[in-house]
Formats: sequence, C-alpha cells, structure tokens
Amino acid sequence: MRTAYTNGKFITVNGQNQVIEDGVMVVEDGKIHSIGEKSNVVIQNVDHTVDLCGKWVLPGLINAHAHTHMTILRGIGDDMQLKEWLETRVWPAEGRYTTETSKWSTALGIVEMLKSGTTMFSDMFNPMNIDADEIASFIGETGIRSVFSRTLFSFGSEEEQRESVKQSERFAEKWKSAANGRLSTMVAPHAPYTCTTRMLEEAIRIADDHSLPVHIHASESTQEVQKSIDDYGKRPVAYLQQIGMFNQPTVIAHGVHLNQEDLGILAENNVAIAHNPVSNLKLGSGIANVPEILKRSIQVGIGTDSVASNNNLDMFQELRFAALLQKGVHEDARLMSAETVLRLATIEGAHVIRQPQLGSLEPGKEADFITINPKDKSHLQPEDYAVSHIVYSASGQDVSDVYVQGKALVLNGTCQTIDEEKVLFEAKRLFKQLSESVQ
Amino acid sequence: MRTAYTNGKFITVNGQNQVIEDGVMVVEDGKIHSIGEKSNVVIQNVDHTVDLCGKWVLPGLINAHAHTHMTILRGIGDDMQLKEWLETRVWPAEGRYTTETSKWSTALGIVEMLKSGTTMFSDMFNPMNIDADEIASFIGETGIRSVFSRTLFSFGSEEEQRESVKQSERFAEKWKSAANGRLSTMVAPHAPYTCTTRMLEEAIRIADDHSLPVHIHASESTQEVQKSIDDYGKRPVAYLQQIGMFNQPTVIAHGVHLNQEDLGILAENNVAIAHNPVSNLKLGSGIANVPEILKRSIQVGIGTDSVASNNNLDMFQELRFAALLQKGVHEDARLMSAETVLRLATIEGAHVIRQPQLGSLEPGKEADFITINPKDKSHLQPEDYAVSHIVYSASGQDVSDVYVQGKALVLNGTCQTIDEEKVLFEAKRLFKQLSESVQ
Repeated sequence: MRTAYTNGKFITVNGQNQVIEDGVMVVEDGKIHSIGEKSNVVIQNVDHTVDLCGKWVLPGLINAHAHTHMTILRGIGDDMQLKEWLETRVWPAEGRYTTETSKWSTALGIVEMLKSGTTMFSDMFNPMNIDADEIASFIGETGIRSVFSRTLFSFGSEEEQRESVKQSERFAEKWKSAANGRLSTMVAPHAPYTCTTRMLEEAIRIADDHSLPVHIHASESTQEVQKSIDDYGKRPVAYLQQIGMFNQPTVIAHGVHLNQEDLGILAENNVAIAHNPVSNLKLGSGIANVPEILKRSIQVGIGTDSVASNNNLDMFQELRFAALLQKGVHEDARLMSAETVLRLATIEGAHVIRQPQLGSLEPGKEADFITINPKDKSHLQPEDYAVSHIVYSASGQDVSDVYVQGKALVLNGTCQTIDEEKVLFEAKRLFKQLSESVQ
Repeated sequence: MRTAYTNGKFITVNGQNQVIEDGVMVVEDGKIHSIGEKSNVVIQNVDHTVDLCGKWVLPGLINAHAHTHMTILRGIGDDMQLKEWLETRVWPAEGRYTTETSKWSTALGIVEMLKSGTTMFSDMFNPMNIDADEIASFIGETGIRSVFSRTLFSFGSEEEQRESVKQSERFAEKWKSAANGRLSTMVAPHAPYTCTTRMLEEAIRIADDHSLPVHIHASESTQEVQKSIDDYGKRPVAYLQQIGMFNQPTVIAHGVHLNQEDLGILAENNVAIAHNPVSNLKLGSGIANVPEILKRSIQVGIGTDSVASNNNLDMFQELRFAALLQKGVHEDARLMSAETVLRLATIEGAHVIRQPQLGSLEPGKEADFITINPKDKSHLQPEDYAVSHIVYSASGQDVSDVYVQGKALVLNGTCQTIDEEKVLFEAKRLFKQLSESVQ
C-alpha cells in the first residue's frame, strides 16, 4: 500500500537537518519511499492521499531509557535521593505487583507515550512476580515499538538468581525480534551496585551467545561511584570494562558522573549513553556533562526514566531540559542548540538503541512519524521557527497524529489501537488495590 | 452575586498548604466568601452552583516577571548570550514596533497566559514608538490582572530621556489603580547597565512621590556584575542600595549572581526577587541559588521573562524548572519540594509583586482561581498526588477553566473575553510585516 502525505512542513533530521517547507512524503509498506519538496516528488500509483494542511512532521521520538511498568507509581516518592527512593518506595511497591498490575501500568505508560509523540521506547522492566511474555505480547499488540528488556538483579537466594538468569536467557531468545520487527530486546543487568560480578558475567555471556546489546544503569550518583571504588577499587565504567562488558554493544543509562578516564573508555568501546536529565535532577543525582560527552563522539540518546522520578513521559519536556540545563550550568547559551537536542531524541537515539532503521525522515527508513498542528496554538506562534518551538515551547499535548510503520496509532490526539478509557480505568483500579495492600 | 463551586479538590496554598479533598468554595462579588470541606460549608442564598465534578482547583498562577509585548518575537534569537541577544535581536525588533504590533503581541501573550492558568502578570513593557495607554486599556478589557510597568532606559538624547521620564511619571499616575483594581503599575528602570545613575534616581523619585514599588532587572549575568564593578566600584545590588533604591519597595528580576553581601542587603531591605529559571538557562546567565535566597527569608516569585528567551509563558513549566534545577545542581533531592515551588508561583509571588489580596484560596481573598480536570489525562494518573503532578507532570494545556475576580475568562480551554482567532490572525500578520521591514 502506498500513501502520500502532502502539504506538510517536514523536519527531516537528516544529515543536513533539512526542513522541507512545502513537502510531500510517500510511504509504502511501512517504509518511507520518497520525501521532498512538492515540486520534486512524483506522486504516482498512490492508494491514499493525506492532506496535512500545513502541519509540522517529524520523526517519532525515541525514548532511550524507560521503566514503563512503573507508570502507576507516578508521584510515590518526591524529594528523596536515589538509594532511599529505590529501597523504601520503588522496590516494595514493585514487590506487590501482579502480572495484571504490570500490564495495565505499562498500558498507561504506552498511552501517555504515544499521545505525546514517542514511537519507540527502550525499556527495563522488573520481572518480579510477573508473566513477562504476556507484557511483551501486549506491547506488540498496541503497535508501538520497543526494545523491551528483562532486568537482572542479584536479589534472593542463589537458586532464585540462577532461575532469573535462565528466564532472562529464554526471554531474550524469544523476543529478539517480534511483532513485525517492532519488538526486540537487550540483556539488562540492573546496575553494578545491584548485580554481583558473577551476575554481570552471566549477562555478558547471554548477550554474546544471542548477539544482543547490553542495557545497564551506570554512574548515576556520586554514592554509586564511591561504592564501586570501595567494593572493586574502580569507578563503575572501569569496572564494567574490566569484566568485559564493553566487548558487547552497550548502552549505559545516566552517565552523570564521568571523569576523563571514564569518557576515554566509553569512547574507545563505542558505549552509548541514555541521558535522563529530568530524573537525574529529581533524584538529586546531578547533571551529566553532555557537551563534553558529545565532544568525545560518544553517542547520546534521551530518556525519561520512569514517571516515579520525573513525573511524566513527555519527551518534549526532556528535550527542553537537555538543551537548557547545559546552557545554564556552563553559562554558555551557544551549547546544545535546538537542532542538536532534537537529533538526540531521534536519529542519535536510534543509534544508541541500535535501531539505525529509525530516527529520521529519509527514503528507506521506517515510516515512524508524528505531526503537530501549530495553527491554532498561541504558544507556537508565530510559526516561523518550528524547530526552536518544538524544543523550547511545545509539549507532548501538541502532538496530533502518530504513525508507526505507516500505521496511524494516534489521530487528532486520540489513540486508535488502544481503548484509552479502559486503560485509565484499570490503572486507577490497580493503583487503589496496590495502595490498599500496604495498609 | 453569590456562586458556589462544589465537588472540587481545592489546593488552597494557605498557611498549612491545606488540600480539601471534597470541597466547596463560595464566591461573592469577586471575592472568596467561604471555603472548606463539603460538610463544613453552609451553602445558602446562592445564585449559581457550579459542579466541578472532581476537578482540581488552585489559585491563579502569578507570573512575577514578563515582557508580554515581545510575544511575537518567540524564537528570534536562540543560542545567544544576553548582551548579544538584546543588542542584535530584541532591541532592533522592538524599534520597528508600532502601537498595533505591541497591542496584538501583548494580546497573543495574554491568550497564552490565560489558557495556561496565569491570572496575574507583572510586566515591563518597552515604550518605544507606542501609545502605552492604548495597551494598558486593552489589558484591562481582557479581564486578566497585571502590574503593567513602563520601562525606563537611558537611550537617546538628553531631551528624549527627559521626555521618557515625564511620560513614565504620567503613566504611573494614570495606571496606579484601574480596571476595578485589576490593573496597577510599578516604576521600572530597565537595569543598572542600561540606565544612568541620574535616570535611576529619577525612577526612585517617581516611586517615592507616587508611592509605587520599583521593578528592575539586576544581577542577571556575570558580565553585568563585572560591568557594575568596573563602572561604579560595586556589585549591582550594593550600587542600587547606595543610590537609595531600596528605600522604596523593590523587586529585582533575576538575582542569578548574588554573593553573601548582596543577600544581606536584599534581606535587610525586604527586596523581593522574581526568579526566571528558564530564561536564565536559555541566555546562559546561570542558575540562581534559590534555596540560599529563601534561607535568608527573601521573598521569591517566579516569572517567565519574555518568550524570546523561554520560548513560552507556561508557568507550570517554570515551576518544574524551579524545583528540579536546585535538586540537581546541589545533588540534594530534598530541596524545593512541590509545595514550596507552588507557593512561589502563588502566595509568595503575590507578596513579591505587592498584591497580598491574591495568591491563595482563603476567605477574603480575590476569587482568582484555575481548574484542572485530571480524569481523562493519562499523565495525571493516578490522581492521588495532585500537588506533585501539578508541579512535575502537568502543563499549561491541562488547565480547563480560569477565573479572575470570580469571572470566567477561560472555560473548557477556550477564552471567553478574547477572540482567540482574531488575536492569532493579527499576531501572524504583524510578525510578517515586522519580518519584511528588515529585508
């Protein structure tokens, strides 16, 4: 099937950051067939034509680090540092989850992500008490894309840990590629401070055996860095290198506290970073030095982390923080332009999560794109500086339509493949149940 | 006229930060008559009853520092430091303004502010080439509240400067209290680096003669502080104290670069600060040390500054930055709770701009309030942590209704007193005209 999208302003995020003012994009079988100025694109043999009426079109946003199953925990622990928050709020709540809680909490997150323009999320879910296959199947049905990874912890007895490794390996094999290529997975040991060396080595083995990348939290807080030095005589990055993790393609979430030696190791090993500016602020972790990281040619994507340390999944907000923080901290307004951060949430993010077929509007790429209608929005007027407004003024609520593989998942702000009302109803019910179970 | 608002969750921002779960508020003649739990409020002799159906209600947000006439300049200068941005972008563009440009640009800003829950803005407008009275009248007609101040600069010939002082004094006298008390003014010398000492002294005299507060930019950038030391041998705050400014009630916008001596002077003289976190980041000015400022019991409000350094007027975004920045910079998640920053944008902001009749939902206060309907919004679920979600997840687009003096200015997201379509049309037209005039 071939569809032509006409009369759009296409923000391509291609190598030249080209913006096509009066453009046409032809989509065929879920991929971008051609894109360009109206006068340069031949529209023929088209089954449908969609008139975008001047809307802005950009690649679907890529959330490089999320924990979507935690979405019903929005707001459970404000004003707490990472360690206390994990140990007194997050893990006890997750311990009371059932598969049903996990499913509808994930659904709530997917509704929020889709409606705010995220078409792909790289996720670390906590497998406690849940049927992970059911959640993965559900994600596949919604039509969104995900790199959905089962987290490994060194919690529980030796036997429980062995079982967890076994389950993770089985999960990795099963979900390596599913849902017409929209679903894949990585091997996801939680962090150097929650996994033993042995567990991390098992994770590396699984990644190697199944040719999968590794997704791990690292260098998030000063406390973590200190603990690594105390336990292993090395900072987290040097320790992970030493045990061989970086022989696998690896993405570390956070990378807030990196010294020059760390940066050297990451650059040399092509380790990518998922930058989570809002979560890092909210948990008092600090501010990653992204301009310095980019100078070393380390690839950077942008993530929201979970809503419990955010409290939303709006990638537009994340873009704004990513841009503005660095300008302010370094007292240099020239750092992190709107174009630069938009690349991080699209094409660069695609490389970070090892999905190079995504992230820009170019022929041959997957047809994952979103639209914004600036016409009647006072905060997007005047419309002339679209990229600036997208980064510095828009919010997820400005997103009108969302397409993945050429299929409309959101039209005019309404989900097409998910019953939003049911999702909100179930999420409320299960949060109530979860709250009552503590009392 | 007496109206009862029932079935609301009232976030009062009173002295106890009370949240009334199932509350009622009675409004009479533009003021809050009574408020409390349903069982405690007697509803009698009521002309109208409005069922809020579980909406959240909070005081109208107070924008403590804005330049609303600049709204059509959204996005004109990204990635530029303050000085270059003012001299090469903002002032040349303002120089091409007519009264008409100023009026519709202000209108665009008011539409944006009202729809995103701001009911009061303290403004510094640039009087170049415009009929200031026409703009003030227009603001009065919209129904919003404003402390609308005419900016003084030491630009132009001696005669022009004398004329500007004369006009400012006339304007101050005329607009001291208008539009049923919704409109007032301050004396607004632009900044220590754009006004001569003589001009600042004239401003102080006008403020003294007419019993008006002073609104001035100060200590915004390191460059400004250094220039003050070079020119006057003192940092901006010490210099302003020396010339007697702080004998008048004063609010300084920014206060990014304050040392202990500065803080001592501000505290001793009850000088208030309008904190503009986003603008300070965007222009590379830095990050004000708000926790330290609050420790000194200096009053702090929150402002957006103009959209040209933001790029929007959404106070919810500003709240989020105000809270999260400090947690991250100081690596302390306990700093700046949601309750604290919400107070800055409401009751504390009211004190900063010297309007103590505003800023909380309490009997006797002006009936300026806004509502949010969380029910069908995935990013506000579960609804239990309303204040946390307001600060960390909501955006201006979540605002449903906006009331000032008990009058509905926005209902269900639509302006009731302003023709939005005309405003957007005129703003687009005048921006186009402005752009063409450079070519």
